[in-house]
Amino acid sequence: MKVLIKNGYIVSMATEIHKGDILIEDDRISRIGMIECDVDKVIDATNKIVMPGLINAHTHVGMSLFRGYSDESELMEWLSKKIWPVENNMTKSDVYHASLLSGIEMIKSGTTTFNDHYFYEEETARAAELLGLRAILARAIISSEEEAIKRIAEAEELYNNWHNKCDGRIKVCVGLHAPYTCPPDTMKMGVKLADRLGTPIHIHYLETRDEVKQMREMYNMTSTEYLKKAGVFNYHVMLAHGVQVDADSLETLKDISGGIIHNPISNQKLGSGIADIKKLRDNGINVALGTDGQGSTNTLDMFEEIKSAAYLQKVLYNSATALSAEDVIKMATIEGAKVLGIDSEVGSLEEGKKADIIIIDTNKPHLCPLHNIYSLLAYSVNGADVQTSIIDGKVVMEDRKITSIDEEDVMRDCRRIVESLFRK
Amino acid sequence: MKVLIKNGYIVSMATEIHKGDILIEDDRISRIGMIECDVDKVIDATNKIVMPGLINAHTHVGMSLFRGYSDESELMEWLSKKIWPVENNMTKSDVYHASLLSGIEMIKSGTTTFNDHYFYEEETARAAELLGLRAILARAIISSEEEAIKRIAEAEELYNNWHNKCDGRIKVCVGLHAPYTCPPDTMKMGVKLADRLGTPIHIHYLETRDEVKQMREMYNMTSTEYLKKAGVFNYHVMLAHGVQVDADSLETLKDISGGIIHNPISNQKLGSGIADIKKLRDNGINVALGTDGQGSTNTLDMFEEIKSAAYLQKVLYNSATALSAEDVIKMATIEGAKVLGIDSEVGSLEEGKKADIIIIDTNKPHLCPLHNIYSLLAYSVNGADVQTSIIDGKVVMEDRKITSIDEEDVMRDCRRIVESLFRK
Repeated sequence: MKVLIKNGYIVSMATEIHKGDILIEDDRISRIGMIECDVDKVIDATNKIVMPGLINAHTHVGMSLFRGYSDESELMEWLSKKIWPVENNMTKSDVYHASLLSGIEMIKSGTTTFNDHYFYEEETARAAELLGLRAILARAIISSEEEAIKRIAEAEELYNNWHNKCDGRIKVCVGLHAPYTCPPDTMKMGVKLADRLGTPIHIHYLETRDEVKQMREMYNMTSTEYLKKAGVFNYHVMLAHGVQVDADSLETLKDISGGIIHNPISNQKLGSGIADIKKLRDNGINVALGTDGQGSTNTLDMFEEIKSAAYLQKVLYNSATALSAEDVIKMATIEGAKVLGIDSEVGSLEEGKKADIIIIDTNKPHLCPLHNIYSLLAYSVNGADVQTSIIDGKVVMEDRKITSIDEEDVMRDCRRIVESLFRK
Repeated sequence: MKVLIKNGYIVSMATEIHKGDILIEDDRISRIGMIECDVDKVIDATNKIVMPGLINAHTHVGMSLFRGYSDESELMEWLSKKIWPVENNMTKSDVYHASLLSGIEMIKSGTTTFNDHYFYEEETARAAELLGLRAILARAIISSEEEAIKRIAEAEELYNNWHNKCDGRIKVCVGLHAPYTCPPDTMKMGVKLADRLGTPIHIHYLETRDEVKQMREMYNMTSTEYLKKAGVFNYHVMLAHGVQVDADSLETLKDISGGIIHNPISNQKLGSGIADIKKLRDNGINVALGTDGQGSTNTLDMFEEIKSAAYLQKVLYNSATALSAEDVIKMATIEGAKVLGIDSEVGSLEEGKKADIIIIDTNKPHLCPLHNIYSLLAYSVNGADVQTSIIDGKVVMEDRKITSIDEEDVMRDCRRIVESLFRK
């Protein structure tokens, strides 16, 4: 199958922005330039932006049913009183439908890869398989003893059943919940599993002031010291949040493989604070962007995270120049891919890489005029401006229509589930 | 002309949210309830949110052509090196077309009233007339002596030609630029004009740390003391920004008629800081929301300002409960109307009030499920979800189509102007 994207503004994240064509053969970009050849399908991208699909580097897509259920609560109260009691009643089928809804939402707002951390992840895998999304999945490991042992077994089963499935679109890694929820034995089991399977570790890290305090009380350590002692930093690590990074932690982070995942909306909404992304990046640490789950962030629109990330550094530094539009687009694409360890395959438009591409229509009043494409992407575009999305060479959305499934059916199923799940 | 909106979730901002119908007769809401009667037009609002049109309480709509032209500069450098040199070359026709573009952008994202502060405002009036928008317009008064006298005369001419025109949809007030750009004689002339015409005063106020410093150096006063001395607070005042409100200023603000207009995205993007909206509101001061111009904020989507306003107080107070979804929706509707002095006519859906109404389609993946309507509006909805807009009883947008003008023509004209204006 050959697809030719003609005459777009190519924002490759590997070269300067230029006008041109992109030829896709099967799952990969085979050529970028001025191209004339016989193909199966031509997509006219005149006056459109052609760029790498966005990478949502930290989310919990099974949480879509919680959107707007309990806003405006502090993190621990929100988890223990609102989220966990409902999650305890969720079935595999609920997580499947919730993941389908999230998947549709992600595709319709420009995300092509997501890095997930939840339970019943095989259901999320099935949803990603059907919708054509690229995914890295982790069964959340939490608690201690039998509960932790059970979850470790589930994580390994998930790996055996799904790792590298769907032509490599689905990958599985080890997901430890957080330093303050995983006691030393659980950490040890998780690290051993990552070692045996050869996967990265995805973990919540320095999200709140409470975490800092709790770790001090429980272990007389920082979260960084705790993870270091457990050997976590000997592996590729995907550290979600990093709001409370102190000077010692920064030194440790300079040497890791992987990076921090910034979730600016979740951090704002839960009152967690502003992660100092500029300092991290100035010290050579890769920073990705994530949405977190809809329980805290409400939508999975990565363009909203892009805006908030760009705004918040300007607030933190009292400076309009603290983080540029181009840099924040990097974080949502190639730098996100680096944090996830998949930058040799995705995150930029280059010959030989996987064809994960989104096309944005600029012929809209709020996107007119077009002085600067990075500015437009960072400050004006929102998810609804994404017109077409291609993942692994396959068109998963065309002219705003999801190609694999009827989104009305998915919404109807989710509403039905909500009716019973939240009335129990 | 009778229009019946059937079976919507009515978010009136005057009562609890409930399902029902709204009957519009000519320019006003005549009944709210369960209504069966003969009408000229029925709009089915099943599964849709019906709410007051949003009020953009501080903007410069003639600036749409600057969108993305110069992001990431400090305020004064941005104004003096980038904005003012181009503005000096702008013609009346340029401002007309720029205002049309902004007007379309506002309608398409749910705004029905805007409060503008710029030059060639008669051109903005013509655009608002054509598009059917409700507007309060101010010719920006700045500088001293002859320049100020000329602008005062233009402000009065604008009033004579446009105040209360278009069945009262267009109003004119006095727009002083800012304390640090209007010397005492100019302030005096502006206040005298407001007194003679009986209009409110719209002014930039305590936007930056630089303003605080400059006012100290120039007059050994705070901006508040300066405005008080000039008699500004004896009139209805619309104070844009209010980022740097100190304790003494807060005391003064408690007694004013009018209020503060919060522009959260502009304040973030220019590195100006976070206005303490919670403290202002806790002290009984009305706070409206505005977008500022597209030169700083990039779009006029008030739903983006709603999100940022809700997020930023949570950042400022390190608390998820600092500002509720319902309160921020108030700021964008009825409280905004209070700041603008038009709350007897608009800002809520009540029998007898003007019919300024927007309808939001909730049947979208990112708006599903629907646990809480205020949460949905504050955290999930964006401008593109507004389906239909009614102003003064007239449908100005239906199913995303502007009824008065072809938006393609407006974008084409604006692109042509940009080609010449920014290459001079």
